[in-house]
Amino acid sequence: MLVREATDDDLPAIGPFFREIVADGETYAFPEDLDDAGVRAWWFAPAPGRTVVAVDDDGTVLGTAKMGPNRPGRGSHVGTASFMVSPAARGRGVGRALAEHVVACHLEQGYDGIQFSAVVETNTGAVALWRSLGFEVLATVPGAFDPRRHGKVGLHVMFLPLR
Amino acid sequence: MLVREATDDDLPAIGPFFREIVADGETYAFPEDLDDAGVRAWWFAPAPGRTVVAVDDDGTVLGTAKMGPNRPGRGSHVGTASFMVSPAARGRGVGRALAEHVVACHLEQGYDGIQFSAVVETNTGAVALWRSLGFEVLATVPGAFDPRRHGKVGLHVMFLPLR
Repeated sequence: MLVREATDDDLPAIGPFFREIVADGETYAFPEDLDDAGVRAWWFAPAPGRTVVAVDDDGTVLGTAKMGPNRPGRGSHVGTASFMVSPAARGRGVGRALAEHVVACHLEQGYDGIQFSAVVETNTGAVALWRSLGFEVLATVPGAFDPRRHGKVGLHVMFLPLR
Repeated sequence: MLVREATDDDLPAIGPFFREIVADGETYAFPEDLDDAGVRAWWFAPAPGRTVVAVDDDGTVLGTAKMGPNRPGRGSHVGTASFMVSPAARGRGVGRALAEHVVACHLEQGYDGIQFSAVVETNTGAVALWRSLGFEVLATVPGAFDPRRHGKVGLHVMFLPLR
């Protein structure tokens, strides 16, 4: 598996699983029904942010991550990131590979830490992965996510100090 | 003091104190040096968000607030807001008037709660005001704000449940 910079040529591969994951309604408070141009606007991070894809040996896109400063100006020394793994590629370590890449990028770029502001508390696989990388849950905003299939759940604010 | 909808005609009044407060560097992780068009893009919230101004009897703009959903999609039932009081109008209850207006708007619109994601912990006046309205500090992201005049300080995540 290779993690490389995403390009516009990856949009036709990203778009379908991006829409599938958002429509599934259990993990992301993102706009629904974005077309590929909308996915590009939402997911492709302007510099100094970056968007990457994980691809297999055939070049198939398995997942994607975006990263960049969590805030502008006097908050830009803390980074943030978001991750999407194609449902067809689950269980192959794609999320972990993307996450390790993102942490390494933040270290290289001298960030003080990484903040995730909206990790759905019932997304236990993701929460366990972030914890295994050293992230801690700082707080849980009660009921801040409205899943498609059950009652409202909290959004974790998670943080990994890098220095 | 009246709190009313902001219009483009208020930009020449908002712009100078917006830039002064951001450049002062103690309270907001916002982009610096925005011109009035940049302030408009950053501060004037698209529907269903709103931007309001507090004005005195002469029509002088004393402060402004923006509000709207904290997240799109499945997070849009929690609101958020930001506030700016003109330094020339401090100590006159402008922040409180704006905050009470914002809470009333959120109640009217049926939000579940209000989240502030980046309250600078050393901005003790603001923290005390939010606490007096019922907000609680859920967490403090360590060192996430880099003030102009001293070392890095935390950003509070504050929350007010509305139902």
